Amino acid sequence: MGREFAVIGLGRFGGSICRELSKEGMHVLAIDLAEDKVNEFKNIASHAVIADTTDEKVLKELGIRNFDHVIVAIGDNIQSSILTTLMLKELGISKITVKAQNDYHEKVLNKIGADHVVHPERDMGKRIAHSMISNNILDHLELSDEYSIAEVKAGRKMSGKTLIDLDIRANYGCNVVAIKQAKDINVSPMPDEVIDHDDVLIVIGADKDISRFEKHLVVDED
Amino acid sequence: MGREFAVIGLGRFGGSICRELSKEGMHVLAIDLAEDKVNEFKNIASHAVIADTTDEKVLKELGIRNFDHVIVAIGDNIQSSILTTLMLKELGISKITVKAQNDYHEKVLNKIGADHVVHPERDMGKRIAHSMISNNILDHLELSDEYSIAEVKAGRKMSGKTLIDLDIRANYGCNVVAIKQAKDINVSPMPDEVIDHDDVLIVIGADKDISRFEKHLVVDED
Ligand SMILES: Nc1ncnc2c1ncn2[C@@H]1O[C@H](COP(=O)(O)OP(=O)(O)OP(=O)(O)O)[C@@H](O)[C@H]1O
Ligand SMILES: Nc1ncnc2c1ncn2[C@@H]1O[C@H](COP(=O)(O)OP(=O)(O)OP(=O)(O)O)[C@@H](O)[C@H]1O
Ligand SMILES: [Ca+2]
Ligand SMILES: [Ca+2]
Ligand SMILES: [Ca+2]
Ligand SMILES: [Ca+2]
Repeated sequence: MGREFAVIGLGRFGGSICRELSKEGMHVLAIDLAEDKVNEFKNIASHAVIADTTDEKVLKELGIRNFDHVIVAIGDNIQSSILTTLMLKELGISKITVKAQNDYHEKVLNKIGADHVVHPERDMGKRIAHSMISNNILDHLELSDEYSIAEVKAGRKMSGKTLIDLDIRANYGCNVVAIKQAKDINVSPMPDEVIDHDDVLIVIGADKDISRFEKHLVVDED
Repeated sequence: MGREFAVIGLGRFGGSICRELSKEGMHVLAIDLAEDKVNEFKNIASHAVIADTTDEKVLKELGIRNFDHVIVAIGDNIQSSILTTLMLKELGISKITVKAQNDYHEKVLNKIGADHVVHPERDMGKRIAHSMISNNILDHLELSDEYSIAEVKAGRKMSGKTLIDLDIRANYGCNVVAIKQAKDINVSPMPDEVIDHDDVLIVIGADKDISRFEKHLVVDED
């Protein structure tokens, strides 16, 4: 690969990015002000250093210019987040992703040239809200304002039936694109596939169609 | 509907849940210690009250027993999160979802009877890490350790070709389950569908197959 990532701020969000990139074999430089955080990542990231990234000299010494993608995951200290982003931009980093705390923060980040601004708590809140409205929707990927992919517990009403029996596309306008059975995932389910009580259906469609499907075919069993 | 939700802690995560549930027409009681947070949600949630939920008397006075699902989104104060969860459980709430700060916190929450423990920052970090590894994977839903759904930019290499031309299932073992074209989403793409440069393909399959597909067919255009 040879892609080089740097993660600044090793809180829950930045730390998780650092772990996942490392797990996927990426080269990651982990940076935090706090010694205990840096020690935590010594054996996870390629390198881990204690540094205050609001200091331009420090950033230069780290050789941050050589990194393709820098993630700024500094949280509560919005000023440090902005200052760090500003200097990364000036140093010519080609891709800067920054965690925002609120809309004002996002606006400033966009103005000073952040390439991608993310709101992890807000986005995850939306996602979890959707899964809470229905006890039977386990997870949810929003494709657009109107379309989603949802993971739906099959339950007893569908148990023993085939996809032909249920004719979900004709009746509800949504498609079953995969079926999870215990640890296995069938990504090319056949029309005569028999659904088991414990299966999880991966359904794609308009939000209104998915919720109609879920209301008619899924029994709340909690 | 008539389902009743209460959200305790109106930070970014709890606040987002509260907004989204309200947007979807749910009845939500919003609770926080801080007056400014509560004021922010006065016109969003069904009700918004200032309260310290570590006080059992306060919880009883709120009539919290009547709620079907309570979300504890208290962050930095782990002790308050645990104490609140413990009392909700004793009051017989049937569904309690709690935000955890770390593994230790999660362990305690599970022991005292939380029904669902969530790690928003950690989960979103994982997700964003995956989308950063490839500039062309826009979003990502992990179905299991080995399977995912990914949103992939089509780009020039696929442009003008049909799904038959590309034969993605035979060549890469993954399936195109939908195509996003500007604001439209086609959830039943035909085999002779012509792909445009700007289209976004929704692909399901094993992680290794998706990344093979992405490496061969998607040109990095950033
Ligand atoms: N100037 C800086 N240079 C380097 N690291 C910094 C700087 N300022 C803050 N940090 C680090 O950023 C990390 C994340 O900050 P903080 O804990 O405030 O964010 P948070 O939003 O609560 O995080 P999360 O929700 O992801 O856990 C902390 O470990 C902190 O030490
Ligand atoms: N005992 C309590 N009763 C009611 N609300 C509380 C209590 N303790 C804390 N809160 C509220 O919980 C909210 C979230 O807490 P905090 O800001 O520490 O979490 P956080 O993890 O940084 O949040 P996020 O990352 O979601 O923004 C705050 O608005 C705080 O006032
Ligand atoms: Ca914090
Ligand atoms: Ca939606
Ligand atoms: Ca947070
Ligand atoms: Ca995976």
